[in-house]
Amino acid sequence: MRMYDIIRRKRDGEILSEKEIQFFVRGYASGEIPDYQASALCMAIYFRGMTVEETTALTLAIRDSGDRLDFSNINGLRVDKHSTGGVGDKTSLVVAPIVASLGIKVAKMSGRGLGHTGGTIDKLEAIPGFCTDIPTAEFEEIVNRIGIAIVGQTATLAPADKSLYALRDVTATVDSMPLIASSIMGKKLAADDDCIVLDVKTGSGSFMKTEEASEELARLMVGIGKQAGKKICALLTDMDKPLGNAVGNAIEVWEAVRTLQGEGPEDLVELCIALAAHMLYLADKGDLGACERMAKEAIGSGRALATLIEMVRAQGGDVSYIETPDKLLAAKHSLDVTAPKDGYIHCVDTEGYGVAALLLGAGRNKKDDVIDHCAGIQLHAKTGDFIKAGDKIATLYTNSEATLQVARDRLLAATFLSNNAPAPRPLIYKVIE
Amino acid sequence: MRMYDIIRRKRDGEILSEKEIQFFVRGYASGEIPDYQASALCMAIYFRGMTVEETTALTLAIRDSGDRLDFSNINGLRVDKHSTGGVGDKTSLVVAPIVASLGIKVAKMSGRGLGHTGGTIDKLEAIPGFCTDIPTAEFEEIVNRIGIAIVGQTATLAPADKSLYALRDVTATVDSMPLIASSIMGKKLAADDDCIVLDVKTGSGSFMKTEEASEELARLMVGIGKQAGKKICALLTDMDKPLGNAVGNAIEVWEAVRTLQGEGPEDLVELCIALAAHMLYLADKGDLGACERMAKEAIGSGRALATLIEMVRAQGGDVSYIETPDKLLAAKHSLDVTAPKDGYIHCVDTEGYGVAALLLGAGRNKKDDVIDHCAGIQLHAKTGDFIKAGDKIATLYTNSEATLQVARDRLLAATFLSNNAPAPRPLIYKVIE
Repeated sequence: MRMYDIIRRKRDGEILSEKEIQFFVRGYASGEIPDYQASALCMAIYFRGMTVEETTALTLAIRDSGDRLDFSNINGLRVDKHSTGGVGDKTSLVVAPIVASLGIKVAKMSGRGLGHTGGTIDKLEAIPGFCTDIPTAEFEEIVNRIGIAIVGQTATLAPADKSLYALRDVTATVDSMPLIASSIMGKKLAADDDCIVLDVKTGSGSFMKTEEASEELARLMVGIGKQAGKKICALLTDMDKPLGNAVGNAIEVWEAVRTLQGEGPEDLVELCIALAAHMLYLADKGDLGACERMAKEAIGSGRALATLIEMVRAQGGDVSYIETPDKLLAAKHSLDVTAPKDGYIHCVDTEGYGVAALLLGAGRNKKDDVIDHCAGIQLHAKTGDFIKAGDKIATLYTNSEATLQVARDRLLAATFLSNNAPAPRPLIYKVIE
Repeated sequence: MRMYDIIRRKRDGEILSEKEIQFFVRGYASGEIPDYQASALCMAIYFRGMTVEETTALTLAIRDSGDRLDFSNINGLRVDKHSTGGVGDKTSLVVAPIVASLGIKVAKMSGRGLGHTGGTIDKLEAIPGFCTDIPTAEFEEIVNRIGIAIVGQTATLAPADKSLYALRDVTATVDSMPLIASSIMGKKLAADDDCIVLDVKTGSGSFMKTEEASEELARLMVGIGKQAGKKICALLTDMDKPLGNAVGNAIEVWEAVRTLQGEGPEDLVELCIALAAHMLYLADKGDLGACERMAKEAIGSGRALATLIEMVRAQGGDVSYIETPDKLLAAKHSLDVTAPKDGYIHCVDTEGYGVAALLLGAGRNKKDDVIDHCAGIQLHAKTGDFIKAGDKIATLYTNSEATLQVARDRLLAATFLSNNAPAPRPLIYKVIE
């Protein structure tokens, strides 16, 4: 078998065999297949696509490129939730404690943020002392005792995805449905969960800008998950505006805690309840209506918040930041962004909001960039709101004063005011099972 | 300017600017742009194509990636001929002496063979003592004195093409019209010729398998040449069977000498006269009819052969091999390939014939492979001929006996016998000016 023939066959629109796909992934992961052949293949895949069978084979080959996790020491059903990424998406910090507080295990491996999207690990590290890199035995012990632990992905988890994603990132081959699906699912399947709820975003802040593309991606990933023997479903949800009112790291933890205290913004609460309900439903906790009521009760009773506090304590974090979340709002500099004229916020370029937060220090352009955990944005008005000239749209927070002006300009440029109210968009488009 | 954006723009079907194309070629030649980005771009070009303007910009950037030759020390018009490559194509060895014997200068840089196609330099090196690497001053002196010299391409001639071709060769991006055209013309334009006659092959032994694709390539290259200020035309010629009856190195020199002695096979003679006539025509030696008569006379009078002998002598070769060409036929082993049944040779896979010669030792799989100059094939029957079971189709020659059987199998597998005579194909399809 020659990599050349694999490239040529895909280039010519032929269907690759499982063996060819395994040959590629193994060879690339081992360094025998050079980057320049891998990038040529990715570009050919970009143009020719892949069948569901090819995508599944690619996913499983990525999964098998490193260590597969074994959570057999964890008692009970393990459920995970994965978001395709967005701006202000702190649902993991709300949903995982809800579910864990109801007896379902959440043994979560999360990623870091890159570009305009944030990552759960970065957010958790905004809590002083919180450790995201703990030995497996301790991780299992915490999950068994409290129901939940959240750690960073290890280097040995689906290493082929790491190299391949880095290559795609510099060769304009990220935006390919089968490559996105296999990258996400390859990592997810390497973990040892029983059920997976996918939160597939659509709109200006997501990788998939149209509802059609997002739905196709969702269906593809659900299909792959089922073939791999998982209980899985996907919620197709809106990312045409930031989720909730906080964008950043510490500030998103703050908003998540406020949500678990029953004081969350409407959209975030609605999505968290829906995601948690579907996780409970997959874990056989009852019908969807019952699962939804259980999720709401877990917030109302304070049970979910108590679980988050226990997890933070177990992972070495200073729980006073959860008990008194305002301690998280510690940026040295801030700036109010005000409306230049009257009007409705007709729409926003959500990715632009993400970039504004990145400019303030909340994100990374490159993998090695250091994050300012205090940096972020508090939104005072969102799409559909009517505002008057001079009204506050947002407050920017940072420890680096010099970034304020450029972030403000970026945020204003991403905010489109108009005389007309926009048509409302649903928060949850559909559920794909 | 970022290479990423150049890849993305081409991927999305946008038209690259001259500056972007120069940025790519310069960056790639200097090593600043890595192979994996270059191969992704080549694959995007494969799918999206390039406009004539883009292809011209790419050609000129390749031309300018190294030293441009300066032949101002050579007196008189300089004419070159270039073939897109085929099997048994020894026309340079016939045409260049004809034209030089008529007062036109041929200061020729030729390539080596790769894969199933041969190269003029390999063929000349079959003449004992012949040197293809001589200093510029001596090269110019020989051209001025005899009218002709043929040397190998220097490493500094269009180096971007060398790296890019090697990359395309292993990433399935060779078969792209703009990439082929810019590769050929980039090298040609780096030489300092006044007129260029292109021999663009079509059929099973050429890169372009269909007449339409070959014509498109021919028009593209003629257009680029004109934009660069050259007098240029292209002949679209048949490569659906080997040219002449000899395939190899020493054996092709033998056939070229026999042709200059007036004993050449019909198809080779016809094409050589046509190519030489167009070279003379571009060099203002008269109308096409007159030029054709001059070319024939150069053979009939022995004047062209005398010029070849002088060139071989000037470049250190043993002229006894030209004066007594049978000395070139010195392979230790030979094998007759006979017809398994009666029938017409309906068609042949010409590339398969080239591979058979390669297997005998006449060619290279990889750049560093060593050639057996004695290896090759003498054809006794060609497409359209009727043969009886047991009749000789070809004789194989090699110094490596072990290759004979596999080469015979390859040649037989590439020969299609049928009860019906095939429709004749023209040798010269058209001339593109």
